[in-house]
Formats: sequence, structure tokens, C-alpha cells
Amino acid sequence: MSNNNIETSLENSSKTAVKRILTGITTSGIPHLGNYVGAIRPAIESIQNSNHEAFFFLADYHGIIKCHDPALIHESTKAIAATWIACGLDPERVTFYRQSDVPEIPELAWILNCSCAKGLMNRAHAYKASVDINVENDVDADQGVTMGLFGYPVLMAADILMFNATHVPVGRDQIQHIEMARDIAGTFNHKYKPLFMMPNAVVDDDTPLLTGLDGRKMSKSYGNTIPLFGEVNPQLSAEKQMHKAIMKIVTNSQLPAEPKDPDDSAIFEIYKAFATPEEIADMRAQFAAGIGWGDAKQALFEKINNEIAPFRARYEELMANPKELEEILQMGAEKARRHSRKQLDKARRAIGIRPLAKLK
Amino acid sequence: MSNNNIETSLENSSKTAVKRILTGITTSGIPHLGNYVGAIRPAIESIQNSNHEAFFFLADYHGIIKCHDPALIHESTKAIAATWIACGLDPERVTFYRQSDVPEIPELAWILNCSCAKGLMNRAHAYKASVDINVENDVDADQGVTMGLFGYPVLMAADILMFNATHVPVGRDQIQHIEMARDIAGTFNHKYKPLFMMPNAVVDDDTPLLTGLDGRKMSKSYGNTIPLFGEVNPQLSAEKQMHKAIMKIVTNSQLPAEPKDPDDSAIFEIYKAFATPEEIADMRAQFAAGIGWGDAKQALFEKINNEIAPFRARYEELMANPKELEEILQMGAEKARRHSRKQLDKARRAIGIRPLAKLK
Repeated sequence: MSNNNIETSLENSSKTAVKRILTGITTSGIPHLGNYVGAIRPAIESIQNSNHEAFFFLADYHGIIKCHDPALIHESTKAIAATWIACGLDPERVTFYRQSDVPEIPELAWILNCSCAKGLMNRAHAYKASVDINVENDVDADQGVTMGLFGYPVLMAADILMFNATHVPVGRDQIQHIEMARDIAGTFNHKYKPLFMMPNAVVDDDTPLLTGLDGRKMSKSYGNTIPLFGEVNPQLSAEKQMHKAIMKIVTNSQLPAEPKDPDDSAIFEIYKAFATPEEIADMRAQFAAGIGWGDAKQALFEKINNEIAPFRARYEELMANPKELEEILQMGAEKARRHSRKQLDKARRAIGIRPLAKLK
Repeated sequence: MSNNNIETSLENSSKTAVKRILTGITTSGIPHLGNYVGAIRPAIESIQNSNHEAFFFLADYHGIIKCHDPALIHESTKAIAATWIACGLDPERVTFYRQSDVPEIPELAWILNCSCAKGLMNRAHAYKASVDINVENDVDADQGVTMGLFGYPVLMAADILMFNATHVPVGRDQIQHIEMARDIAGTFNHKYKPLFMMPNAVVDDDTPLLTGLDGRKMSKSYGNTIPLFGEVNPQLSAEKQMHKAIMKIVTNSQLPAEPKDPDDSAIFEIYKAFATPEEIADMRAQFAAGIGWGDAKQALFEKINNEIAPFRARYEELMANPKELEEILQMGAEKARRHSRKQLDKARRAIGIRPLAKLK
């Protein structure tokens, strides 16, 4: 995994030797293979091979903005927690917590609301895009927009500033949110006292976006995903679900023995995300030699399954024993709150909120 | 004190025998005599003479929206707490707490953000007024508007819905905020499960608005107030401050012995708020008989001081011993949190946030 990251900070105010990296995962879905390749695997590899501090959290208070299905919020929280642990995230090494277990976060979000210009939120790309669609459809500009959707960058600022995270890995579409967190931090620091460090957005353009069953980018919204560990309440074993999905990859109608173009094949695209350079070269040769689509799919399945199977066993164990997961999350919450209690107390004192007298 | 209250509810969904009344006091100033006559005295009288449940809270998380002076937020919290207790609020009888001691409130506010249409906030009178002023001045419509100012009705909804308050005494300008709380509660109840009771705005049009030194309504923003217990760090005793302020009441240049029109006099207007009907009739006669302005002011001072002096002693005791105040507030927080912890847990479960397994 290469690590050609772009730090999009104008001024890096946090030139500390050890970075503090913070990553949130919204709990409104069940992880699929695209999430594994695009987010989970690189994040775990990158943190396990570094001496940086890392905070990973299940962003359930972000999840409820768009997902109003309580069962899915709950199942998603469980599945995502189990996935990260099963894939090798070490909860002793990192701080791994559920956002809603840290009540200091929404409290800080309110404090930050009072240091955040509304105009900043008006200019959010995501909000503006939804206004544009509404205007185009000749309905009220704010139709379907809740205060949660509108104010979500402030909650995200609280997530980040609570722990004085220095580096926040994000997609390109999220860079603006980090800039907003910096803006809010700057306003608070100026108005009251310097308390919050300036976070930096880290965009990794090298991690592949996994191709989906239909050749487009793998995404839940396209319905073209390969399950990572199987869906909730599966009729089939997780391994069979994965096999079945892979067998559905769209191909052209070329017959076995006809030479095939690997660069025009979703099978080959996905294979590349799991194979070594030698294996990739070998598969390229097999395409030229006319491997049948069924055989290619079987080879892909075996390649993926080889990597995933050990994680899957651990995932199923955790899903069957949520008590262990809950204990892991509680340990994480305790670690997170050791920071958040202190940071919130500092923020409260800065704005004038403190006990009238010491008791005891 | 008459009690000709108007309940501005379209449908009173809370026809319970015992009302639950909730009152918040923003902590961004030091109470003056107008606050005493217009809010503190009627609220305490009305609650002590009823069997209703009452929640009184120091709204410090509202205070920080407009007041960015940490020392004033702190001093105001202390002075307001001391004032209410000194004026006879019984913290055993009511639940008297500081908003920021109940972390469940900002957490619920976030949850409610996700059930609150942004359009609802766009239509808030206070927000629209500030947009109008900005547009008139040809600056950005949202200039000077923070997310705290814009989203404050949601925090207020959380204040109310957290305790399922049935009756919320407000000024006419705040009726819309209660309607917003009802709207937000309705959306949540419909989307998830019926959890929140519909609060009713209670507007009391009979309580007099106290006249200020210049004959206009007494208000901090007019600079025409009479201190209730003296300002913070006074050079003079509180009693002397009150006397000095009363001596500054604006009068006309009529000489002693000239008959005077009581209905054109701020002295008489203020006197009416403290005197019995008989005393008022007697003072009216004295005006007709040509009481001198100095004598009238002295009579007014004695009338007010007679009522306030016992409270003032207790106030000064509490201000000198903030430990007692803090203990009172902590007792209130504990009482409030007995409700808020349960209510928040119900709201969290409704949206899908709960432990993955029971521990222990």
C-alpha cells in the first residue's frame, strides 16, 4: 500500500512528531467489499505500521441524520464494530469508540455552534447541492433539509476538536468540512482562548476505488456491491453469498478460449485490489490466453476469500457474541472520555461555565 | 396577583390534573427590579400557591449565544441563582438547576436537530428580523448570525421536551418557540414513537411591566433600571444603590405643593407594583395634594425597600457563600437528571442507539 498522501493544510499548526489521526465511520449501512478495500484495510495497515495516535469511532450521531431506521442504525453499529475488529484493528493500540458513548461531543457541538457563523454552513457544498436540486424542481429551497443535515459540519468539528486531532483522513468531498472545523476552531480560539489545534485534512488519492459488479465504482447506492462478510440474517453462509455475488459480475459474451481484454473487465479490476504484482501479471496473461469467464470469476473468488476467510471467522464470532464487542466499545469510550472530559471542561471554563464553588 | 393566563395551545394534549411548568432564565445579566416584578415575584408566588410540578433552570447554554464575556456569564449565573433563592424559591419544592449541569440536554438537542426541518428555523421571527436589518443595511443576510442563534429554538425544544413540560410561561415574542417545540416533538413522535408530550405556551398579560427611571419600560437595554440587590462589586451598599437610583427618576419641574398628575409619573407607576390598593389610593391623594417629588421618591424607596430588604440580606449571604448556592444547584441537577437520564435513554433507544449487549 503506497502512502502518497496530500495534506491540504494552508498552515500546519501541528508539527508534532506524533500525529493524532481521527477517523469516523457513519453507522448507516453494512460494510461491503468496497469499504474494505477503500477504507478499512488501508486505515488498519497505515495505523498498525506507525507510531501515530489513532482515534476510530462509530459515528452513530451522524448516522441518524439520513437513516431513520432504528434497527439499521443498531445493526450497522454492531456490524461495523465487528468488521473493524475482525479485520485486525487493535483496540488496545487505538482508541476505538462509539460517538454516542461520549456525551461530551454533542455538548461541545453546542458550544461550537455559538462560534460558528451560519454563513459558513450556507456555503457547504453538500447543502448547496441539495438546495440546487430543490430549486430546479421548483420546491422550497430547504425541502428535506433538517437542522441535522444543515448543522452536521459543526458536530464533525466537535468530533475532531474534542481530541485535538491533527490529521483527519477524508475523501475529496469532505475537505471543506475540515476547513470549516479550522474556521470554527479559529473563531473560538480568538474569541476566548487558544484551546483547539488546527486539524489537517489528509486525502489519499492512491487507494483504489473498488469496481462493482457492473463495472462502475462499487457503491451501495448502485446496488452493485460484493458483501464483505454477508448481510444481516443471511439465508446463505457468508462465503456462499460472496461467491454468488462474484458469479454475477457483468461480462461480455465472449466464449471461453477467445482472448479477452483484462482492462475492460470488472473481474480483472477487482482482482488487482487483492493480488500481488506477479499474480496480476499472471492473470493478465490468462486473459490473453482466453480464460473462460466462469474460471476467471472462480479465481477471483478464491483470491478474495483467501484474504477474507480468517477475518470472517472472527467476524462471525463477534456478531454471535455482542457482549465482547460491547466490552471493547466500553473500553474505548473510557479511553476517549479521559480526553473528552478534560477538553470539554476547558471549553466550558473558557466560555464562563464552571462551578460557583468547590464542593467537598 | 391575578392569574388570567392565556393558554395558546391549539389542542391541549396534556389535560393532566397536575401541570408541569418549566421556566428558563438566561444567564447574561444581573437581575434588576423589573425582572423581580415581571418574572421572579409572580413565578414564585404562582408556584408556591399551587400543587403543580415546577422546573426552574439557569439557561447558561442560551446565555453564551449572545454574551461572549465569560466573567459575566459566571457572575450572572451566581447572581440569578442567589436572587431566586433569596426571593423565596424553595429548592426542595421545585427542581432548580443549571442547564449546563444536565449534559443530556445538548445531547437531546442534537437528536431533535435530526427531526427539525431547517425551514422551521428560517421562519423564526427573531431570525427573520435580524435578516431584515442586514438586508436593509445592504450586508450579507446572515451577518452576525451564528449557528447558536439560528438553532437556539431546537435547544429550547430540548429543554422543554426533556422533562415533558406541559406548561411553559413565556412572553408573547416566545410563543412561536413553543409552537416550534410542538412541531419538533410531533415529527419525532411520528417518525419514531410517541415519546414527547405537547407543551403549551402560557402567556400572562396581567403581570405589570415595570416602568423605568425615564418612564419607559424598565430594561437593561434602555439603561433605566433600578438595581434589585445591587450590582456586582458595588462601591455603595445595595440599599444605597437602590436609593440613589430611585432619586434619579425623571420628573417634571413642578414645585412642592403644586397638585401633580399621578398617571403621568414614573414614581407612581412603580409604586403601584409594590403597594396595596389602599396604599395606592392614598398615594394618589397625596399627589393631588401636592406631595414634593423628593418626598414621593423617598416614600417609593421605603415601600420597595420594605419588601426587598429581607431578601437582600439572604442574597448577600448567598453571594458571600457560593458553596451553599453550588450545593443547591447540585441537588437540583441530581433531581433534574433523574428525569433527563431516563428520557434521553428512551429517545436514544427510539432512534436505534443502545448497547449491543447487556454487560454485567
